[in-house]
Amino acid sequence: MKTDRIGSFLFLAVLLGACSGGEAPAMAEAGGDQATTTDQGEGPAIRAQAAALFKIVPAEPPKLPHNELTEEKVELGKMLYFEPRLSSSWLISCNTCHNLSLGGIDLMETSIGHGWQKGPRNAPTVLNAVYNLAQFWDGRAVDLAEQAKGPVQASVEMASDPERVVQTLRSIPEYRERFAKSFPGETEPVTFDNMALAIEAFEATLVTPGSPFDRWLAGDDAAMTAIQVKGLETFVSKGCTGCHAGVNFGGQGYFAFGVVQAPSDEIRPPEDKGRFAVTSTAVDEYVFKSPSLRNIELTAPYFHSGKVWSLAEAVSIMSSAQLGAVLTPEEVSAITVFLGALTGNQPEVEYPLLPPHTADTPLPDVSVPSAAAPH
Amino acid sequence: MKTDRIGSFLFLAVLLGACSGGEAPAMAEAGGDQATTTDQGEGPAIRAQAAALFKIVPAEPPKLPHNELTEEKVELGKMLYFEPRLSSSWLISCNTCHNLSLGGIDLMETSIGHGWQKGPRNAPTVLNAVYNLAQFWDGRAVDLAEQAKGPVQASVEMASDPERVVQTLRSIPEYRERFAKSFPGETEPVTFDNMALAIEAFEATLVTPGSPFDRWLAGDDAAMTAIQVKGLETFVSKGCTGCHAGVNFGGQGYFAFGVVQAPSDEIRPPEDKGRFAVTSTAVDEYVFKSPSLRNIELTAPYFHSGKVWSLAEAVSIMSSAQLGAVLTPEEVSAITVFLGALTGNQPEVEYPLLPPHTADTPLPDVSVPSAAAPH
Repeated sequence: MKTDRIGSFLFLAVLLGACSGGEAPAMAEAGGDQATTTDQGEGPAIRAQAAALFKIVPAEPPKLPHNELTEEKVELGKMLYFEPRLSSSWLISCNTCHNLSLGGIDLMETSIGHGWQKGPRNAPTVLNAVYNLAQFWDGRAVDLAEQAKGPVQASVEMASDPERVVQTLRSIPEYRERFAKSFPGETEPVTFDNMALAIEAFEATLVTPGSPFDRWLAGDDAAMTAIQVKGLETFVSKGCTGCHAGVNFGGQGYFAFGVVQAPSDEIRPPEDKGRFAVTSTAVDEYVFKSPSLRNIELTAPYFHSGKVWSLAEAVSIMSSAQLGAVLTPEEVSAITVFLGALTGNQPEVEYPLLPPHTADTPLPDVSVPSAAAPH
Repeated sequence: MKTDRIGSFLFLAVLLGACSGGEAPAMAEAGGDQATTTDQGEGPAIRAQAAALFKIVPAEPPKLPHNELTEEKVELGKMLYFEPRLSSSWLISCNTCHNLSLGGIDLMETSIGHGWQKGPRNAPTVLNAVYNLAQFWDGRAVDLAEQAKGPVQASVEMASDPERVVQTLRSIPEYRERFAKSFPGETEPVTFDNMALAIEAFEATLVTPGSPFDRWLAGDDAAMTAIQVKGLETFVSKGCTGCHAGVNFGGQGYFAFGVVQAPSDEIRPPEDKGRFAVTSTAVDEYVFKSPSLRNIELTAPYFHSGKVWSLAEAVSIMSSAQLGAVLTPEEVSAITVFLGALTGNQPEVEYPLLPPHTADTPLPDVSVPSAAAPH
């Protein structure tokens, strides 16, 4: 009987395309745990717990109270997201460090920007970032629009400034038209603020619904393997949800990194005190916004220092630093495999064609201030 | 009667979407030249001349004798084209310098690569490059596959090597599968040569049919403005076609830059002797493959040195350096406007999702040899 039900789930999963080849062996090996997913008619007990802690990523992007996601604005935002001429060198775009081919990040310890300079922190993914309570590791930007203005101006990133950006965009007729359509009724629609709003509008569409976990939470038992359900149970029972819950499995609050035990200086460099730089409050030393764990298997290396490449190692470090718990290798492995179930459908993006510059466009400047030597 | 015929052509052009808003004023201003386009029942005399000199870019990519363009291989090639992990830093892909958002180039004087190092020559466009007789400014690569291997290994570009690339690609299961499907029957399909063949297959699809000139050559009189036809006539009568003819308006032969008069040392740096480096033959000093003029209005700055940002200025320099002719400002302007008619439909590209690395993938190395200082 139990076997029959598992068989039906597998059959349904194949029909729905829900079972990936890579997961099948794990499911077979962990056959003894199947009871967990089939204990009750309404679904497993852990599902009710999970439903109280997490939310499914909606298929549609959220509505933003301050920024309507019109088709024109989202399309303009996409162009600006891929627009290297927002940087002074014409070489670096938002997509350079938040690459939509690669889970919305750059796979760097910390990003490399203008002049091959190394930035101070690991680039967080843009995917589902709209669901974070604030942006940057220290939450210093209230939303994606405010965030978008940061890297454009940072000397180690795009090394431009609002004046140059506006001059650039106004010099290109197609951008003038597109800003006018995206911000109708404004006397001068091409502004630095509107650039940021358009980018935010596009970024708000970069959500990843349809993860195995979300399908499982919606009632599809076969969407996660038994070992993944086991990993979820461990994730919940060990208290990981203290910082990683909600729709984004994180991104909803600020927490000290090293609540129980300070990580090594390599992983938590002493000079980066996190949110303390924003609030100047002693209690915020080494406090960071908890990162989202959505698509986490795609977004190595981990932590704000980017010093850890292995997800299993990151899970281990978290358990000792945050929970003071020593997890068994099996528990670490189960949580790690479960985190793989948080990878959703990646956004499908038609690569934009960018309009040509004109004689009025400020030309690229790849020069690097002499103080900013490469490493 | 003549007016009626022009009216009919315009009407047809509007129906076909052949008339762009931007061109209408030029046509109106140059109304006196309309006779040029309507002299004969079979089309203008210049069309017969043009048909003997040039060819329309076919809508379908060409067949390559050595490399079948299968769907699997083209898709794999697209992924590799956008794959930054072909570089040692994981930051630079083919698309970095041949950006498909920007006419297949990087809008740089000369490209910036690994460690923010500046390359020696301006990056030629990848668009329609399959129609060139050879690749690179000096023709040192016989085809796009051979070309693709160059930048991957160049220390100032992607700074990797075949061993690292193969190790990287073999470490990623999805790439192993895709290479096996793209090169069926091969015992070890993941090789550096096959990487290059896949990239070539994708690049061969990057053609730009449908330019105003091509539509005009096919019989649509309204596809070019009168001033553009005038520019074409000047282009032909002044002898520009000596180096810029065929399907690509260039790319079909090697020619001395400065046949009549050497350009300034800034535009033709004395240390770069062009094809001489390939053949070691004195007659090849300052000889280069003539670049294609397709999409030329998108691909500033111009010449192998990338020192000239204005297309009109480039036309002027060419006339004195190559033809020994002093063109009037009107002639320069007409040729420049005509060259704008060589911009075709840009390739539509779905931005690829790249598969995650594994524990076996060599990690990124952004370090720069100390000799290679930035500038």
